Amino acid sequence: MALAVKALFFDVFGTLVDWRTSIAREAEAQLKSKAVTLDYFAFADAWRGEYQGAMEEVRAGRIGFCKLDILHRRNLELTLDRFGVSNLSEEEKRALNLAWHRLDAWPDVPTGLARLKRAFVIAPVSNGNISLMVDLARRNGFPWDAILGAEIAGDYKPKPRVYLAAAEALDLKPEACVMVAAHSSDLAAAAALGLRTAHVARPNEHGPGRGETAPTIAVDLAVKSVEELAAKLGV
Amino acid sequence: MALAVKALFFDVFGTLVDWRTSIAREAEAQLKSKAVTLDYFAFADAWRGEYQGAMEEVRAGRIGFCKLDILHRRNLELTLDRFGVSNLSEEEKRALNLAWHRLDAWPDVPTGLARLKRAFVIAPVSNGNISLMVDLARRNGFPWDAILGAEIAGDYKPKPRVYLAAAEALDLKPEACVMVAAHSSDLAAAAALGLRTAHVARPNEHGPGRGETAPTIAVDLAVKSVEELAAKLGV
Repeated sequence: MALAVKALFFDVFGTLVDWRTSIAREAEAQLKSKAVTLDYFAFADAWRGEYQGAMEEVRAGRIGFCKLDILHRRNLELTLDRFGVSNLSEEEKRALNLAWHRLDAWPDVPTGLARLKRAFVIAPVSNGNISLMVDLARRNGFPWDAILGAEIAGDYKPKPRVYLAAAEALDLKPEACVMVAAHSSDLAAAAALGLRTAHVARPNEHGPGRGETAPTIAVDLAVKSVEELAAKLGV
Repeated sequence: MALAVKALFFDVFGTLVDWRTSIAREAEAQLKSKAVTLDYFAFADAWRGEYQGAMEEVRAGRIGFCKLDILHRRNLELTLDRFGVSNLSEEEKRALNLAWHRLDAWPDVPTGLARLKRAFVIAPVSNGNISLMVDLARRNGFPWDAILGAEIAGDYKPKPRVYLAAAEALDLKPEACVMVAAHSSDLAAAAALGLRTAHVARPNEHGPGRGETAPTIAVDLAVKSVEELAAKLGV
């Protein structure tokens, strides 16, 4: 596979960063100061649980495209309501919403990406907005060549436009690009357009033992880390 | 100025890379093999001379937005005609057009950008397309946080949309961004929108003694290199 491939596109939430542990940590740090005590992992899961539904409003055309930060904020309001938290100021909610800009990478990611960049153009093709991707990259040392994804395309994965806009931005045919993700649904959408696929197992994404240990569809490569992906691609 | 500034936006052609020497070198390498001998610097100047006129077609709305690679190709045809070169194949013209992806940086740029990245988000805000910016970054070691500019905005500088789209992508107000360029016209357009401005003197951009040695408008900073810009910003 390696010879014809020019670019690697990465899903980010779950695939490269451990959103659940990070959001629980950020929620605890900010809510404790407001004397709010709750199950912070349950809070993270509930906030993330609103993710697909909010994007579906855009994908279905019921609302125009907006940055994921805006959808995260809408989902934060729903989640605070559900947990009965009503004493946050506008400024405190704004700060908590930026928790998604402070997620930590799985440990294999920074070194793995640095290896892959030697031989391939690497870019996130995430539903996260550009500023969010920039903040995660600066925090974790992701050496991206460019920030591609939803904001460039004006739509959300798994809509075809997001994958195709990324390939077009690099002047590449889909088959010269590999979508790398921990989610089979993301890879299935990319494969249907002609992209190559690599699955990274993140068995603890949604908590211990709650994540994809292996792809549920046929993929070109299946690995357990970004370091292993680099090794399998010979870099 | 430094305290309130979060991001630095860079013009690229002329400001960061020496397009004239690089294009002359690339043209010589490719045309000599076709037994074409001409003044390669004059060829570079003529090719670049079509640049503003081609973009003006887009800015004025006479043609839709297309990548700069497409405009460069149109301009290459005009330039080959003018120099009486008619023996290039489609594949040879395609390869020559990609000369713009192989420009070399002025020597102060890679180290200067690395210093600036420690304290600021850095991104090109160029009229060059994303793939062109990625290739120049990989060739020269520009450590961009993101690739912003014309292709993100769907229009060409100095149209306001290009500068504003870059600030919006980073969730920043214009006054938190500095436009860095060797061309006063670029800085004037940015300043009119509220961005800060930094002029980098490139006195030899268009050949020995043919470039802006100093800004022709009021700017926030005027320097002679990207290294000096880093020093003046305290990083």
